[in-house]
Amino acid sequence: MALKRKPVTGMKDMMPEEMEIRDYVISQIKETYKTFGFSSIETPCVEHIENLCSKQGGDNEKLIFKILKRGEKLKIDTAKEESDLVDGGLRYDLTVPLSRYYSNNANDLPSPFKALQMGNVWRADRPQRGRFRQFMQCDIDILGEPSNLAEIELILATTTLLGKLDFSNFTIRINDRRFLKAMAAYSGFKEEDYENVFIILDKMDKIGLDGVAAELEENGYAKESVEKYLQLFKEITNDVQGVRYCKEKLEGFLPDEAAASLEMIITSVESAKEAEFKMSFDPTLVRGMSYYTGTIFEISMDEFGGSVGGGGRYDEMIGKFTGQNTPAVGFSIGFERIVMLLLERGYKVPTSRDKKAFLIEKNMPQAGMLKVLDLAKKERQAGKQVMIVNMKKNKKFQKEQLAQQGYEDIVDCYKDSIDNL
Amino acid sequence: MALKRKPVTGMKDMMPEEMEIRDYVISQIKETYKTFGFSSIETPCVEHIENLCSKQGGDNEKLIFKILKRGEKLKIDTAKEESDLVDGGLRYDLTVPLSRYYSNNANDLPSPFKALQMGNVWRADRPQRGRFRQFMQCDIDILGEPSNLAEIELILATTTLLGKLDFSNFTIRINDRRFLKAMAAYSGFKEEDYENVFIILDKMDKIGLDGVAAELEENGYAKESVEKYLQLFKEITNDVQGVRYCKEKLEGFLPDEAAASLEMIITSVESAKEAEFKMSFDPTLVRGMSYYTGTIFEISMDEFGGSVGGGGRYDEMIGKFTGQNTPAVGFSIGFERIVMLLLERGYKVPTSRDKKAFLIEKNMPQAGMLKVLDLAKKERQAGKQVMIVNMKKNKKFQKEQLAQQGYEDIVDCYKDSIDNL
Repeated sequence: MALKRKPVTGMKDMMPEEMEIRDYVISQIKETYKTFGFSSIETPCVEHIENLCSKQGGDNEKLIFKILKRGEKLKIDTAKEESDLVDGGLRYDLTVPLSRYYSNNANDLPSPFKALQMGNVWRADRPQRGRFRQFMQCDIDILGEPSNLAEIELILATTTLLGKLDFSNFTIRINDRRFLKAMAAYSGFKEEDYENVFIILDKMDKIGLDGVAAELEENGYAKESVEKYLQLFKEITNDVQGVRYCKEKLEGFLPDEAAASLEMIITSVESAKEAEFKMSFDPTLVRGMSYYTGTIFEISMDEFGGSVGGGGRYDEMIGKFTGQNTPAVGFSIGFERIVMLLLERGYKVPTSRDKKAFLIEKNMPQAGMLKVLDLAKKERQAGKQVMIVNMKKNKKFQKEQLAQQGYEDIVDCYKDSIDNL
Repeated sequence: MALKRKPVTGMKDMMPEEMEIRDYVISQIKETYKTFGFSSIETPCVEHIENLCSKQGGDNEKLIFKILKRGEKLKIDTAKEESDLVDGGLRYDLTVPLSRYYSNNANDLPSPFKALQMGNVWRADRPQRGRFRQFMQCDIDILGEPSNLAEIELILATTTLLGKLDFSNFTIRINDRRFLKAMAAYSGFKEEDYENVFIILDKMDKIGLDGVAAELEENGYAKESVEKYLQLFKEITNDVQGVRYCKEKLEGFLPDEAAASLEMIITSVESAKEAEFKMSFDPTLVRGMSYYTGTIFEISMDEFGGSVGGGGRYDEMIGKFTGQNTPAVGFSIGFERIVMLLLERGYKVPTSRDKKAFLIEKNMPQAGMLKVLDLAKKERQAGKQVMIVNMKKNKKFQKEQLAQQGYEDIVDCYKDSIDNL
């Protein structure tokens, strides 16, 4: 029977070249985050459909791969809608499963709990270049730590990792939802308009200050508020001075604690950082997810147009799920983007090994075979990557192919000369 | 909204203790198999439903988690049966996806191709102790190598790995489907009865020689055949002598080439092996999968009742899928069983690090914080696993908890004495 040869729509077969980079990035992630005290955990790829459709997932809930009920539970005759047919789905992120995991296992976990999760997630997005329906996510989260020690550790761990992967000259943009609100309040916007104002502000990257101003006015907000608002962005610098400026200017609107905390995060990270990068206070940073309650941050890289990772504090989310408030901060790196950037760079993983191939003449007698196996064993024990293959008729072509795979040290093993190896 | 706290039926949340062992085993697998020239590949977890239901999966095809069609393709009103509703499913093994992968990408892959696959598979089995509906499989396969060099390399790679994980005194039981057939033919069974005879023979472990004899007779096979058959098993020794004995005794039934090949595999592995284990020629080894065409093998361990891995040659399977014959041999280790055995042993991973914790007094000023971060940075750079946590009111209890996680080296950081650290 013929088989469908292509992978299912929007998912991809990983070739050995890409896998070598993926495996290396994964090992660096595990290694680095471990030194920061994070523990690996894993949740099943399949989640209860009720958990996936709990409104915490935003638009992702429209993109779920749903799993058919089995056995007697499946009643096709009487099914009216999708929800009659399914009881599970593939997770679309690692945050909903983390909330479930924490609520299920909190008694057996330390507090604070520093979790590292790496795993595939699935979204039935419209297929497009560089975006796949199955992709790896990589999250670190600190649960149960209310102080900004959590933010500092997350940013240090993430940037140390990026440094180990030879990224430099990137920027961590940082802001706080409380700054966003204080600036809107100070400018005279009404509280019910905040979210819409932030959605427009979020376009600053693309349409600039004037564009934002125009769109705010188009939306009917008071010219005076818009001017006051934009004036703020002109005056605020992207450093600790900017934070201090906000503290004074927004007095009565911004909690003192918020300004002090953000200043401490920026100062601490700049002092203790290992990689080369810039911390940038960015009052225009919004980040879409409405569940953030405090600090928010994002990684920008010049060589990549958009963000290659981000996160923030979401102190109220786990409580909504579990009924018990739990402070939480997370940082997710864009694993697939990082792998893509490394592939595009022609990145060579530093752990790639010396390679050696033994080509064996046809009908090699047992004694010769044992000799080759013994030589290979010694090379392998020394850490070399060793290929043993039977000699083909077109040996020249075979050697070219081996060389393409990195096997340039090739030993011809002939029956007559096996003793000389 | 309340969340379902437990994972979906039959799947499990991985706790940090187990994950540490899993991560270590995975790293050893990647590391070891790489020295044998295997390349990592990966296929999507979701496969075309047609590929999963192509009769190559045997009983596993009854256990598929099926994925609902999306958008306009889903027509609930007119759906009569499951197949109207689904277009994909979660893979139940890595062999069907490998066949698809190879047929899709063979032009870009070397020949022979040595593939390493690690990944989750899903089977809606009845939940039972120690068996889960999502579990990791770990396969190595050599595609395009007709000679027994493939078997030798697979067995050497797998056993070297087990040795690195501190397993010893295990046994690789080896047989060949051609031996099974030759013994049945020599004893006078009819060809159409072979599969049934093998199913009974497969119970030798449990019911012994007499039990097999009784069951064969109950099934109505000629007493003379049964006696001749069982006499063979009494005479054949579990070593190379046994293979040679078969070669003589089964002349005319067993291809000379099959005996020579099995002898060479056993001799070569015994000569070149790195781990401590026994090669055992086992003419009673059947292995269920009917797609095997030649050599078959299995790992037995005294501390574990059943098999902890196995494989064999399946030269005709990929051809059935792709239309082009491709010799293939695979070896799969029971990843979950190995992890379970290591957990039960209280195995401590050799890469577990020195751990150190810094406890920070409340309201530590910025300068103190920077000092602690700097100390932690140095320890982390030296490879230590470092936890920085805020001091709790019940410091004694907090330290006990940290000690349980392996943080026994704990530094109290007080405001007043920060300069002395």
